[in-house]
Amino acid sequence: MTASPVSPTSIAIYDTTLRDGSQGEGVSFSLQDKLNIAQRLAEIGIEFIEGGYPLSNEKDVAFFEKVRGLNLGNSKVCAFGMTRRRSMKAKDDPGMKALVAAGTPCCTMVGKTWDYHATEVLRVTLEENLAMIGESAEFLARHSDVLYDAEHFFDGYKANPKYAIETLRAAASAGAKWLVLCDTNGGSLPEDISAITAAAREGVADYDVQFGIHCHNDSELAVANSLIALDAGATQVQGTINGIGERCGNVDLIAVIANLGLKKPNYQVLGGRPLTQLTELSRFVYETANLQWRGNQPFVGQSAFAHKGGMHVHAINKAAKTYEHIDPELVGNERRILVSELSGRSNIEAVAGKHDLGDDKELMNRILAEVVRLENQGYQFESATASFDLLIKRVSGKFQPHFETIKYRIVAGDRDVENHVAFAEAIIKLKVGDTLWFDAAEGHGPVNALDAGLRKALTGAYPQLSEVSLIDYKVRVVDSSSGTAASIRVNIESTDGKETWGTIGVSDNIIEASWRALVDSVEYKLHKEAAVSPPVGK
Amino acid sequence: MTASPVSPTSIAIYDTTLRDGSQGEGVSFSLQDKLNIAQRLAEIGIEFIEGGYPLSNEKDVAFFEKVRGLNLGNSKVCAFGMTRRRSMKAKDDPGMKALVAAGTPCCTMVGKTWDYHATEVLRVTLEENLAMIGESAEFLARHSDVLYDAEHFFDGYKANPKYAIETLRAAASAGAKWLVLCDTNGGSLPEDISAITAAAREGVADYDVQFGIHCHNDSELAVANSLIALDAGATQVQGTINGIGERCGNVDLIAVIANLGLKKPNYQVLGGRPLTQLTELSRFVYETANLQWRGNQPFVGQSAFAHKGGMHVHAINKAAKTYEHIDPELVGNERRILVSELSGRSNIEAVAGKHDLGDDKELMNRILAEVVRLENQGYQFESATASFDLLIKRVSGKFQPHFETIKYRIVAGDRDVENHVAFAEAIIKLKVGDTLWFDAAEGHGPVNALDAGLRKALTGAYPQLSEVSLIDYKVRVVDSSSGTAASIRVNIESTDGKETWGTIGVSDNIIEASWRALVDSVEYKLHKEAAVSPPVGK
Repeated sequence: MTASPVSPTSIAIYDTTLRDGSQGEGVSFSLQDKLNIAQRLAEIGIEFIEGGYPLSNEKDVAFFEKVRGLNLGNSKVCAFGMTRRRSMKAKDDPGMKALVAAGTPCCTMVGKTWDYHATEVLRVTLEENLAMIGESAEFLARHSDVLYDAEHFFDGYKANPKYAIETLRAAASAGAKWLVLCDTNGGSLPEDISAITAAAREGVADYDVQFGIHCHNDSELAVANSLIALDAGATQVQGTINGIGERCGNVDLIAVIANLGLKKPNYQVLGGRPLTQLTELSRFVYETANLQWRGNQPFVGQSAFAHKGGMHVHAINKAAKTYEHIDPELVGNERRILVSELSGRSNIEAVAGKHDLGDDKELMNRILAEVVRLENQGYQFESATASFDLLIKRVSGKFQPHFETIKYRIVAGDRDVENHVAFAEAIIKLKVGDTLWFDAAEGHGPVNALDAGLRKALTGAYPQLSEVSLIDYKVRVVDSSSGTAASIRVNIESTDGKETWGTIGVSDNIIEASWRALVDSVEYKLHKEAAVSPPVGK
Repeated sequence: MTASPVSPTSIAIYDTTLRDGSQGEGVSFSLQDKLNIAQRLAEIGIEFIEGGYPLSNEKDVAFFEKVRGLNLGNSKVCAFGMTRRRSMKAKDDPGMKALVAAGTPCCTMVGKTWDYHATEVLRVTLEENLAMIGESAEFLARHSDVLYDAEHFFDGYKANPKYAIETLRAAASAGAKWLVLCDTNGGSLPEDISAITAAAREGVADYDVQFGIHCHNDSELAVANSLIALDAGATQVQGTINGIGERCGNVDLIAVIANLGLKKPNYQVLGGRPLTQLTELSRFVYETANLQWRGNQPFVGQSAFAHKGGMHVHAINKAAKTYEHIDPELVGNERRILVSELSGRSNIEAVAGKHDLGDDKELMNRILAEVVRLENQGYQFESATASFDLLIKRVSGKFQPHFETIKYRIVAGDRDVENHVAFAEAIIKLKVGDTLWFDAAEGHGPVNALDAGLRKALTGAYPQLSEVSLIDYKVRVVDSSSGTAASIRVNIESTDGKETWGTIGVSDNIIEASWRALVDSVEYKLHKEAAVSPPVGK
């Protein structure tokens, strides 16, 4: 007896990062940002890309014009809008006209499912609401494919199941290809999603339509709810990259795609493509939206495969599957071994591997003690691996400074009394061997000036520093309860074009914290060029 | 026919913030932090508080000594450890002794379920692993209640179901009261959790034990997985506050408790207490762990009930349930209306309510345009409501400056060449009416010095500024791709003991950005004291 092979069900991914995602607190996209994101979404094979709400703002109108110039392969761009206004013909409604003018192959139209919303928010009769849905869908279907987003479907169904189904039938009978069930308020439980999705399919079984699911994460159940709707027969998931969106956000498509692609063999996602671009896509969207990464984000977070507990690191060294649910490379992420006071020697060994500490347990214990001491001051070596590298050299007696700080000084303020133009200048005095180097530099702010001054003062002795530049600079108030007198942690990321490295400085003075991180960055660069022997060796 | 009332099943909450939570990247608790958190967990009625792993470090040993001095009501403190080592009697094992020495009413002991872990990581036979579980549970049961954490239970069951059940039976037969099924790697799907939890109950049906569930969030399914395990018969949930923990974290107990307490009437949680402390508890743990709040965290995040889209705000003003799944007050959170380029007039009206803008649509459009202009520079008024208040005053012509900046200057560096002691000094020159005020101040860093200097220079003219102090200071690099030359956003929170307010400044120079936020803070204080008429009025 052989089992007959069942081909997996293909699930369509519908991304609304550019529309629903932009409703998230702190999210704001420029026109170029939106075009860049659309391009990336198409590259990984997202089927539907919702670009915006053309009635609401000029930027979105411009997006639909410009996006026609991009090559988005098989991805379909969608314009978003609402059903026509009450007491107005669809063809005369400004929103309908804006959707048609967008010229997209698909339009997504949202309408009211919940009787309360129709009568109390829109202030229309239940019959008029059905007419608004049907006439709008019919009008749009003459120009493009129509996706009908049934707003508040699950809440609406609970309040008035018969009416909720009627709204779906109004859209289906008017030619909508997709009916998308929205858990708009994000409050539904998986058991509700499962039962009500099944009831919806039953209610329009006589139409040739497909179902989508659109979840919000207000109960931290959006991923589970999306997966369970597929098990109940939906074949499209709407969401956003990284789950950005209003309140607690939309469902995170990253987690949906990864779970479908790596754990649910009965489904196929992104046409079966490998998912190795997911981590890069996640970070690209964070950077573009100017949001901080969510470190512990499933699959793609920096911490998603980071191991801190000593026992876990010990086991991971034997076999990764012992504490990793998937191979991080499948989603383009990577394993990280962290060093902290919880670390055992396994962590120190793993991170310090290239230093060849051998089996010197006493040295490893001293390294661990120094880590604990500095953590108590506010240091964190988890992303400052270059500073940790220098720490190992210092503790093991292998660190030789390439220069000595004699003094550094910042003068900053407003140069011009009338126009208050800000300025910052750094004065730096250093000693390399027996030679004193004195220099000054201007910058956009004190840290920029210090960075410029430090490298300028050293370039005579170490010309290779001209290859180095700063690529990221982060400031964190470590104890934020005491205002400006709190400890400040500065993390810097530097590059020389071949490698990037992270360093850290902590102080109650941001200038001093920055100086320490800058000095570590330069020392790391000079130490890694092994051929150059340090001229300072007292 | 009357339905017989079914009393809800009581679910026990087991918090491991202090142990598994501390494995999270960037998390580090002091002894006093741990004691403070334990106290708060007991106050909201958490049944089990896992305090630490006494074998692993001195801090945890000290915790179990000190915690006896606290009044934790009915909460039970648990010490965590592993099964005894191989080839050793339980009574001689250092870990077992450390657990007994902790003197807690409960001990939680973790053991291996997955055959691969026993033979390849621990390097013991499957029989020896069963003996380690059974003998350890038996030894500990003489001193305290025993909870058995079955590590990797779901993965272990899939690999070797018969052996996985045997490990549970070893613990149950030796006197463990609770068997806790752990999805250690966080990779399981809800359908696995449901089926395997049921199988585990079936496998030990002849013992009088209860079941717990311990989920990690690597697939973004931890909350759903925990709830579904309860539906399959477990009666305890292990997790951490805010879901902090290794990799993607443990399940967030905040979401578990809120879903159980507000949405699942067949369960009772925290003895039926109201959940109005959840938001405060969440923020207390973030602050203590020195982690940034997760703004979009379900139920308790700052954005969880924040409304940005104009249509949503319009509806919320009619009835909150239109876009909120629960009343935010039920979890101690609050609704926020955000102002951004996506805002309609509904948002401006809601936020600007006290300004009585009436129906001046032209003014509201000008306010909106100014918001958009400043957002493009990197401003965000969502948490800087005092700066937004001043913006409205400026746009509507009601702003009168209380002083004029003539100049400000910062000198900072290392004072002492030998010891490199950092210093920062501010020099401030201001004009109030026709009077010039000139002053200087020192500080722990330039912002602290500017703050001190500004208020010092103004106290002669405005003595009420002596009531004001800074309580929080945050720095964000707005465009982090260009290193230290990027735009810097400074957010400041100030208080006068009666009210707290947030202000913002943006510049490519951190000194200037800080100055702007400080000036707004002082102007806000002076404007809100309506009785004092501004002396500058040109």
